[in-house]
Amino acid sequence: MSAERPLFIPVILGTPRQGRMSEHAARFVFGEVEKREGVETELFDVRELPFTTQGEGEAIKDETFSRAMSRADAVVLVTPEYNHGYPGMLKHALDTNLKEYVHKAVGVCGVSAGGFGGTRVIENLLPVLRELGLVTIFWDMNFSSVHKAFDGAGALLDQSHVRRAEKFLSELVWMAKVLRYGRENVKL
Amino acid sequence: MSAERPLFIPVILGTPRQGRMSEHAARFVFGEVEKREGVETELFDVRELPFTTQGEGEAIKDETFSRAMSRADAVVLVTPEYNHGYPGMLKHALDTNLKEYVHKAVGVCGVSAGGFGGTRVIENLLPVLRELGLVTIFWDMNFSSVHKAFDGAGALLDQSHVRRAEKFLSELVWMAKVLRYGRENVKL
Amino acid sequence: MSAERPLFIPVILGTPRQGRMSEHAARFVFGEVEKREGVETELFDVRELPFTTQGEGEAIKDETFSRAMSRADAVVLVTPEYNHGYPGMLKHALDTNLKEYVHKAVGVCGVSAGGFGGTRVIENLLPVLRELGLVTIFWDMNFSSVHKAFDGAGALLDQSHVRRAEKFLSELVWMAKVLRYGRENVKL
Amino acid sequence: MSAERPLFIPVILGTPRQGRMSEHAARFVFGEVEKREGVETELFDVRELPFTTQGEGEAIKDETFSRAMSRADAVVLVTPEYNHGYPGMLKHALDTNLKEYVHKAVGVCGVSAGGFGGTRVIENLLPVLRELGLVTIFWDMNFSSVHKAFDGAGALLDQSHVRRAEKFLSELVWMAKVLRYGRENVKL
Repeated sequence: MSAERPLFIPVILGTPRQGRMSEHAARFVFGEVEKREGVETELFDVRELPFTTQGEGEAIKDETFSRAMSRADAVVLVTPEYNHGYPGMLKHALDTNLKEYVHKAVGVCGVSAGGFGGTRVIENLLPVLRELGLVTIFWDMNFSSVHKAFDGAGALLDQSHVRRAEKFLSELVWMAKVLRYGRENVKL
Repeated sequence: MSAERPLFIPVILGTPRQGRMSEHAARFVFGEVEKREGVETELFDVRELPFTTQGEGEAIKDETFSRAMSRADAVVLVTPEYNHGYPGMLKHALDTNLKEYVHKAVGVCGVSAGGFGGTRVIENLLPVLRELGLVTIFWDMNFSSVHKAFDGAGALLDQSHVRRAEKFLSELVWMAKVLRYGRENVKL
Repeated sequence: MSAERPLFIPVILGTPRQGRMSEHAARFVFGEVEKREGVETELFDVRELPFTTQGEGEAIKDETFSRAMSRADAVVLVTPEYNHGYPGMLKHALDTNLKEYVHKAVGVCGVSAGGFGGTRVIENLLPVLRELGLVTIFWDMNFSSVHKAFDGAGALLDQSHVRRAEKFLSELVWMAKVLRYGRENVKL
Repeated sequence: MSAERPLFIPVILGTPRQGRMSEHAARFVFGEVEKREGVETELFDVRELPFTTQGEGEAIKDETFSRAMSRADAVVLVTPEYNHGYPGMLKHALDTNLKEYVHKAVGVCGVSAGGFGGTRVIENLLPVLRELGLVTIFWDMNFSSVHKAFDGAGALLDQSHVRRAEKFLSELVWMAKVLRYGRENVKL
């Protein structure tokens, strides 16, 4: 197994909303990914991605984003829950790639103002992620009451998220390694 | 019951994709809505809606669109299925309103290139529509193999859709009337 | 509108599990329904329903249960979340009727040992309830950490559920009244 | 990699309904699994599984079924779509195990009388399968209009399913091998 080559696990911040608290969650998770040995990462922000809104899908690909997805072994999505579903701009971005995702791992971090940790946006994303060829791990991050989890400057207030991120990322890294082995060594 | 005042049932075309076949489906359904006595309609196209992508939700409302949703008794969504989910731009548009939708009816027309009539995007939309306060009727329109249902100019090739639209719209109009009665006469 | 005839809103306890905490939630909600003026109710327990497991659907109908569903104006489901889905026995019971449910209201009370209030079983039920012809209201009850919400004898410990039940049932009663008006007065 | 040890991939027939057409689909798929070199299989029928309906979950485990799930490298579910959801008895059976499933592959065969190939029951199962620790592959089998796909004796009428089963099982075997490698060689 190619254990020495680092895993590449980009983090995608899934909302362009002004005043978004998900940015704090994304920066925190990004930091935790960065700390892991043998893992490289990069933070993508759907607000900065240059996708036109006059088209959709692979026709409107952005080369930088697609290259990152292509190189990725796993992806972390950080997404608020909007009306029990995913932000439009997150889907708009995800839909620009297909084969880039196949047989790679994905973990989802749900963010909500209320008490349910974005559980509903995670459920809503499952069929989409599967169809993209991604394998959604069975650990999630859930940032409930996000205004209490981080202060205004983005500092983590609820330290229990550190331990949870550790479990979440361990599972994600496991799946990323396993699927990389599969892509490189197991014939379809 | 205010039976004489016409119902207002706008149709939303849910994708900006170049070459979209959903436009044919939307124009067909729009035509069927137009023909119904006692119903007014209007076609909204997410490609034409002027929502910024640098924000999200009620903060980026468009006055014309919100006024239409506010006036609506029911809404028809015409949506392709992208990776088993809804198009990002459709969600981006829907999320700009909340109270405008409450206690109104919605019917969904799924469109797919393949054989399954957009069933999966419809399932994926259900939790979102409910959270918006909309009541999703239990009849859908399913445009399977949409390239065979319409010719290149948008003419309907599969006439069975006329009868299906009749059933679908009858149910939608029923629910629209019933909920309007409720909004106007039944105390919460 | 037949305002004087009481609404009939049965409550269904959706799990046969030994040691189920959902029974406490169901008895609490049942009590709150009972208190409402102009509403009759009855508690059904899937553990007591005599459905064979050697069949499925309308073929294995139970007359008492079907008559209750037929008479109902709305239904309350009280359901734990098992592996992010609904208990098998709840679905087994629900599937025995079809036309009995059409154009009636349903409200769902999710129960979970953990912190997310059964949100996921509610999302999982939405497509099923819609296909049965039921209209799922957009208020839910969420019993998170159910072991703290009730004591061992079933007494309510977290009084905030009283106020929540009030909101939930007000919405359910509104929808039940509105749909009854529709069934009795609006032509399809 | 332990390539020589055969994979064990049991097939579960998910409905006890009298007259079920899913049995034909299950027997066909079971036969296709049996033919694959290096794969052992066994057919489980929820109608024959001895689970009590007076309990739920791990408390009502059946030793034979649990041992099979424990030994399995992947599972095939063959399930009809009942009211856009899964049969109660299938869920009742699945819920009796947990750790037995972890990091194993699952493929789903949807069966429907109508034209949409059980797509909706597959979507409905996704969150459940994930929570059980199973990895749902992104190929499905879809048996639309099942009365035309098989004759009354269960003989396959629509030969296109052979080719589809080949693709479906290739993907499932790939994922089963990859995850077995992971379970045996990659530290969490």
